[in-house]
Amino acid sequence: MEKKVAMEEKKAIIIGAGLVGSLWAVYLSKAGYTVTIFEGRSDIRLAEISAGKSINLALSTRGWKALDTVGVGDEVRKIAIPMFGRTMHSVAGDLSYQPYGEKDQAIYSISRGGVNSLMMDIAEKKGGATIHYNMKCIDADTEKGSVTLKNSITGKITEATADVVFAADGAFSAVRYNAFQKIDRFNYSQKYIGDGYRELLLPANDDGSYQLDKNSLHIWPRGKFMLIALANEGGSFTCTLFMPHDGDKNAFDKINTPEEVDTFFKSTFPDFYDMMPDINESWENHPLSSLAIMRSEPWHHGKTVLMGDAAHATVPFYGQGMNGGFEDCTVLWEIMLKHTDGENNVNWDATFNEYSEVRKPDGDALQDLSLYNYYVMRDYVADPKFLLQKKIEANFSKLYPNKWMPLYSQVTFSNIRYSEALKNGKRQSKIMDAVMRLENIEEKWESEEVINTILEKLDQ
Amino acid sequence: MEKKVAMEEKKAIIIGAGLVGSLWAVYLSKAGYTVTIFEGRSDIRLAEISAGKSINLALSTRGWKALDTVGVGDEVRKIAIPMFGRTMHSVAGDLSYQPYGEKDQAIYSISRGGVNSLMMDIAEKKGGATIHYNMKCIDADTEKGSVTLKNSITGKITEATADVVFAADGAFSAVRYNAFQKIDRFNYSQKYIGDGYRELLLPANDDGSYQLDKNSLHIWPRGKFMLIALANEGGSFTCTLFMPHDGDKNAFDKINTPEEVDTFFKSTFPDFYDMMPDINESWENHPLSSLAIMRSEPWHHGKTVLMGDAAHATVPFYGQGMNGGFEDCTVLWEIMLKHTDGENNVNWDATFNEYSEVRKPDGDALQDLSLYNYYVMRDYVADPKFLLQKKIEANFSKLYPNKWMPLYSQVTFSNIRYSEALKNGKRQSKIMDAVMRLENIEEKWESEEVINTILEKLDQ
Repeated sequence: MEKKVAMEEKKAIIIGAGLVGSLWAVYLSKAGYTVTIFEGRSDIRLAEISAGKSINLALSTRGWKALDTVGVGDEVRKIAIPMFGRTMHSVAGDLSYQPYGEKDQAIYSISRGGVNSLMMDIAEKKGGATIHYNMKCIDADTEKGSVTLKNSITGKITEATADVVFAADGAFSAVRYNAFQKIDRFNYSQKYIGDGYRELLLPANDDGSYQLDKNSLHIWPRGKFMLIALANEGGSFTCTLFMPHDGDKNAFDKINTPEEVDTFFKSTFPDFYDMMPDINESWENHPLSSLAIMRSEPWHHGKTVLMGDAAHATVPFYGQGMNGGFEDCTVLWEIMLKHTDGENNVNWDATFNEYSEVRKPDGDALQDLSLYNYYVMRDYVADPKFLLQKKIEANFSKLYPNKWMPLYSQVTFSNIRYSEALKNGKRQSKIMDAVMRLENIEEKWESEEVINTILEKLDQ
Repeated sequence: MEKKVAMEEKKAIIIGAGLVGSLWAVYLSKAGYTVTIFEGRSDIRLAEISAGKSINLALSTRGWKALDTVGVGDEVRKIAIPMFGRTMHSVAGDLSYQPYGEKDQAIYSISRGGVNSLMMDIAEKKGGATIHYNMKCIDADTEKGSVTLKNSITGKITEATADVVFAADGAFSAVRYNAFQKIDRFNYSQKYIGDGYRELLLPANDDGSYQLDKNSLHIWPRGKFMLIALANEGGSFTCTLFMPHDGDKNAFDKINTPEEVDTFFKSTFPDFYDMMPDINESWENHPLSSLAIMRSEPWHHGKTVLMGDAAHATVPFYGQGMNGGFEDCTVLWEIMLKHTDGENNVNWDATFNEYSEVRKPDGDALQDLSLYNYYVMRDYVADPKFLLQKKIEANFSKLYPNKWMPLYSQVTFSNIRYSEALKNGKRQSKIMDAVMRLENIEEKWESEEVINTILEKLDQ
């Protein structure tokens, strides 16, 4: 009798105890699966994470939906700081502000380490998952649903098999690398962009207060490079400098000595420089990192499927990497329910096929949107024409909310498919190009003529 | 004294005893290097290669130049069969012929196995290279110039180090996969096209004679799929069916039973079908294979460099895979000579940097051209308009050879850089589009008006 129960146990393996893997464990437990997670690194909850190492992420609507669906959103809300708009810092130190959406709409700053630790707790407690650490995936049999793991401390090699395997092991996915990439007709690309990034920690004031408005995402746009800052709990900001790796000037390969670091910040980001107690120490604390777009197709094979960054790693400029990964859970869950019979058995073949087919265009669009916002943040965010255009869009959108949702809102504050948002955005962009060509647009931007022009073009 | 000599010995490692690796060994020996080649497979010269397994390649000008530069062309000429043009076979069995170039210009059919065996002989005898077989490259330290090898028979793992390492280990390069792909900012993509291929062997007549003109490349173009045939020594032809993997009809996934194979060939390639003694046996003898474009960047790192398919694997439709790989040797050799000092020391850093920078656009262009010719062969080669256009081009080119070299000739019968040829080809294509739009072009294609139109457009 017991044997029968054991045989009927439904087992799932997740590779990677990151954000997506941990969340997906909760979903799977709801479907009655016993979940084992193998994580290549050690338990980050036991490691001492210096504040300087906190990477910040911006959680938005898609992420919240995925969290709330399995009732874990409120736990995350406790550590999230809302940002209602962008604050741009000019070289002269002038600030300009642009709301992200409607009054209460915000994106939420959270520390990657913080939310990941929390998600692991939730996976264990709410998902009943067992997490094994220091287990590097060195091979996988996608058809069989098995993985080969090497314990990086003992060196021991083991194999684990389950009914189904989820690879949520990030941009440099070992499952994708060791298994998918060798599959006939698997398409793959890794393309690094010309820019790299380096993080800096802006500390709190002595009294623990924030040096900048904590409810804004701060940007110092400088044409071909930019600095951004997101608030942490406790008064500090995690700041990131995005800049070309190589170049004549304003490039990472041109900033090598402490003097060069000092001069660069003093002349380019003077208000920021004045807030930093020791720019060089902060600079030295973080390595220069690279940014890449990684595309895969298909996302599944046999009993194994790619999720999150393993399937569609992107550059961080739309703040949608984590949100898109979380949304993979929502989408996969909905498809899975469709293919679950009355006895609670999932047809994984049908589920994976549909997931790969339906979701892949959205992964592509998420990547295209991320690249697009890279240029927006870097080049346009300080451009008066761009700001005027945003104002016209916002104005029209307020009058005709059903006819026009700004692209940023579609991506950030809705659950419209990324591929749909991208398509809508392209159409809007064409219309706005025409509007911006109207004579004296600067003066009549709120006029009926402008409104009617947009209405006409929308009807075409 | 002897120790000093030993220390001054210049050592090179080549991964892969394929066409490019074997040829490059001869070049390196000319530069005074002691060459060790590690090949993952067994010695193909000792294996019995059935005629049915012969893949055929078309050797052309770039390939001959690379072979002749180190004096090994004549050896290869002995096993090469010239093809002076294409013979197209219609469904009705009608033949039409199109010369590839001028009277004596030909591409040469050679068997991959045959030329590879010959090249290995040459590498050993002329290049003094030592070839180790069954040595799978499982890791590489690109900076150090070392490779880790696993003997696939004994299981023994060894490491080898040299002054410089050349990865000529093909489309699925182990060096690229195990080392380059993990290097920060290495761009890579593998993209499979929708078509696969399957080979068939058309045997000789009973008296050993050829069933088709051996000095033609035979094509049965059928719109979205095609069959081609290249002559072997001994009277047989190696034929290849290129066709979509999946589709409503005329796709590999629709041809599964012996009856379906029979019906397909009988109805689509009736003249070919009549020549085949047993279409099903031949069909079963070869697996269905896939076709991919693999792009890498950069091609070098530290002391290690990618060559041939490892750097720029392409689809076979321009017959330039081997030729482009051989040309890598010519190009790398010329750059290397530039960076060799009076004491015969090569500055490999400078050589690799220049090779990667100069040659990469040509690798890209070779791949773009291969894809372009895929559509030409599949879709246009039987189109009367396309054939007329080729006649106009040939006519003009004969009158003004310095003003117009057809794209096919630039790629196949010249050493013009692939990137240059592609650029020229695009310009010519625009001009010919305009020419083909002239009224009654069918009647006046040899007229002065047409000639003058081309001349005018060339001057613009």
